Amino acid sequence: MSVADLTTSPVTSTYTKTSSRLHSPQLSLSSTRLSVHFSRSPRPNPRAQNFKITCSVNQVPSPVAVQTEEAKNKSECFGVFCQTYDLKAEEETKSWKKLINVAVSGAAGMISNHLLFKLASGEVFGPDQPIALKLLGSERSFQALEGVAMELEDSLYPLLREVSIGINPYEVFEDVEWALLIGAKPRGPGMERAGLLDINGQIFAEQGKALNAVASRNVKVIVVGNPCNTNALICLKNAPNIPAKNFHALTRLDENRAKCQLALKAGVFYDKVSNMTIWGNHSTTQVPDFLNARINGLPVKEVIKDHKWLEEEFTEKVQKRGGVLIQKWGRSSAASTAVSIADAMKSLVTPTPEGDWFSSGVSSFWVGCGVYAFPFVLLRFMQVKNQAVYTNGNPYGIAQDIVFSMPCRSKGDGDYELVKDVTFDKYLLKRIAKSEAELLAEKRCVAHLTGEGVAFCDLPEDTMLPGEM
Amino acid sequence: MSVADLTTSPVTSTYTKTSSRLHSPQLSLSSTRLSVHFSRSPRPNPRAQNFKITCSVNQVPSPVAVQTEEAKNKSECFGVFCQTYDLKAEEETKSWKKLINVAVSGAAGMISNHLLFKLASGEVFGPDQPIALKLLGSERSFQALEGVAMELEDSLYPLLREVSIGINPYEVFEDVEWALLIGAKPRGPGMERAGLLDINGQIFAEQGKALNAVASRNVKVIVVGNPCNTNALICLKNAPNIPAKNFHALTRLDENRAKCQLALKAGVFYDKVSNMTIWGNHSTTQVPDFLNARINGLPVKEVIKDHKWLEEEFTEKVQKRGGVLIQKWGRSSAASTAVSIADAMKSLVTPTPEGDWFSSGVSSFWVGCGVYAFPFVLLRFMQVKNQAVYTNGNPYGIAQDIVFSMPCRSKGDGDYELVKDVTFDKYLLKRIAKSEAELLAEKRCVAHLTGEGVAFCDLPEDTMLPGEM
Repeated sequence: MSVADLTTSPVTSTYTKTSSRLHSPQLSLSSTRLSVHFSRSPRPNPRAQNFKITCSVNQVPSPVAVQTEEAKNKSECFGVFCQTYDLKAEEETKSWKKLINVAVSGAAGMISNHLLFKLASGEVFGPDQPIALKLLGSERSFQALEGVAMELEDSLYPLLREVSIGINPYEVFEDVEWALLIGAKPRGPGMERAGLLDINGQIFAEQGKALNAVASRNVKVIVVGNPCNTNALICLKNAPNIPAKNFHALTRLDENRAKCQLALKAGVFYDKVSNMTIWGNHSTTQVPDFLNARINGLPVKEVIKDHKWLEEEFTEKVQKRGGVLIQKWGRSSAASTAVSIADAMKSLVTPTPEGDWFSSGVSSFWVGCGVYAFPFVLLRFMQVKNQAVYTNGNPYGIAQDIVFSMPCRSKGDGDYELVKDVTFDKYLLKRIAKSEAELLAEKRCVAHLTGEGVAFCDLPEDTMLPGEM
Repeated sequence: MSVADLTTSPVTSTYTKTSSRLHSPQLSLSSTRLSVHFSRSPRPNPRAQNFKITCSVNQVPSPVAVQTEEAKNKSECFGVFCQTYDLKAEEETKSWKKLINVAVSGAAGMISNHLLFKLASGEVFGPDQPIALKLLGSERSFQALEGVAMELEDSLYPLLREVSIGINPYEVFEDVEWALLIGAKPRGPGMERAGLLDINGQIFAEQGKALNAVASRNVKVIVVGNPCNTNALICLKNAPNIPAKNFHALTRLDENRAKCQLALKAGVFYDKVSNMTIWGNHSTTQVPDFLNARINGLPVKEVIKDHKWLEEEFTEKVQKRGGVLIQKWGRSSAASTAVSIADAMKSLVTPTPEGDWFSSGVSSFWVGCGVYAFPFVLLRFMQVKNQAVYTNGNPYGIAQDIVFSMPCRSKGDGDYELVKDVTFDKYLLKRIAKSEAELLAEKRCVAHLTGEGVAFCDLPEDTMLPGEM
């Protein structure tokens, strides 16, 4: 039995929208565990990092069955958040919106420790949106989850009406309208990117299945755990009943850092920088786009005359930011990452300012056409000659069916559209193509997790961003 | 030369309000360093923790003179925050208020790492209040300060217009309207409370002098570093030109925790608990007041019939919270402490809801009378018989000239008044008296830092709250 047999044609089922719950309790009980065997020679040639991944798939006991044995598998309300209340009965709260359910994985980690309090404060969803936080952790972090929940209790946030904690995604994700997937295994000593892709990919495959089974049918998912683009791809492939375009890989911190570096170079305050796109992968192949970005409404190249700096130093400045921060501060950038997650959410729930856009790693295959795109470089060549030529999958001719950071606009309804009026030059095209190639390689590397057969890893180099785990 | 000679009659000058700057540049150059000698027998009797503190005072070179030698002593704008801008010139910002200057000490620590982002987001001062953050650290933490400033850069907060970092309080506190004094030395192994009082007291004496010399004449000061009540007292005594009532010791986290525990016991949501006072010291002698607190508008004792729990378990539950959290979470409660600092600030800049109040450790001698109060217990005895009897210093007969947590109300102008309509019973009086006695003992212990002569330490026991440093 192959993985492909389990996930029914994810490419074509991606656009299946349904208002009724497709899963029955029986269906949600079945889950799949993948065990992956790396087969390679005892002394691998360090230059040839290719190795085969084969998969064996075993049915495992249903989460509910496990729960009856282990009480901890149950996601449970915590402390004061178990109290009942009637928002409609009170003068101060009767005009509030309906409670929104937000799940956060890696909830005991440092990024979550900043983000949860932002969410509870109303900073993201506004002062009339009561919120339920559903914290997903692990067996090992369960006590820490309790600690986080205690601090949330002691914060007395009026909007925070429910907090539950659990270690079973099938429980924690039930009816969630947002899933912020922050938790991931950090790379151990000597672990290659392929190994990280596999180990974290399995987590995100499981979480995708859980979302598919129990989450709101229109859940918005933001993947932060690295490698986030391919993790998001794995997740959406395992959740065929949720629209693929609802899955995001976080590149907002890169966007924010890029804006700040352009502001510094131009000698302006950061609020003067707009239309900043991060293209591609959240890795060192990412492309902060200075061709389409604007400073005080003008193209960056008209304001920053030092084009050599733009082409040779700017990208590196953005990418090395996390590493410099670790050197200075001794810790990774939890606070600003949490800010950027909140920014990414706010960008989807508030209308994008006129003429501006934001970046998000989203499925390159979301317009609704099953035809595979022509190779990107060829299409871009055509597009440079004729701006009207677009692919069927996305307006930029980027290979379909990967999660690629692109410029987006939103009406504030949680949905978004890709921005069409961007331009490309050879420099930009070349770099986008490199990130595209990397994401296609990462995709081949996790084929066993996306339902596309046997994985084959030929990642050419380590492109993890400095300062990230 | 005694310390008393240096601080000109702090008790009587406490109420000197002036709109013009009292200090000249020359005046701000003079600072005082206290060196303290502990004299005791080589093997102190652990039961007899009393020991004498004698002080020698030396004039040290002025901070400005030091600066010319060490560039780092200069507080400097950081990165993108060095850019100039004109808020009045832009449509989006022209209606904004005047920039507010907020200093934060211990800015590289974990509490600040939560608080700074809250301040920058507009959560405390509102969406039309641009803010300048002035981060005070130490030589050792300077690189970490840069890291924090980098994360603030990358957060692109529109309201955050200036960030400067420095290690010299005479630079960092210049013109600040708020000073959040979080930084303090943690207690080293084997260090007694008296030792901690002295080592941190010196820091707060210096910071008081610096505030006195360079801060806004109406600066609001919130002391978080422990032992915070007595640190706040030391600070205000060294800042005779700033109203004593502007100094606060943070007891808001205790208040928040107490509300949550009452809600849990009563089986209601925490927004139903009001009128919660923490009396006294931020230590294990603190008194969470269940006599005056209300649940759904009713006295707590009418809602929670288990009076034994109130008298014997409630206080301990509140006080042990930090310790339990460290056990669970492995870290101290940085996030909820930051929330409570933001709460304390919001309580001063927004009107207190009708009929409610909040707790803050404030000077017990702020009404403006130089007469020392009668002993507390005697006065309370009189007051219980006749509600109209108040002391001249505060409405509760608490000994004057200590920093004592009491119930406050604010019109939202940054100022506050003490709440008069509270009742006392013997249980409450007895516990308040114990905390009062402790604060008077702490005061004697730091007399060398408050300008009141030779210190004498007779602290009976260690009353540090569990889980705090």
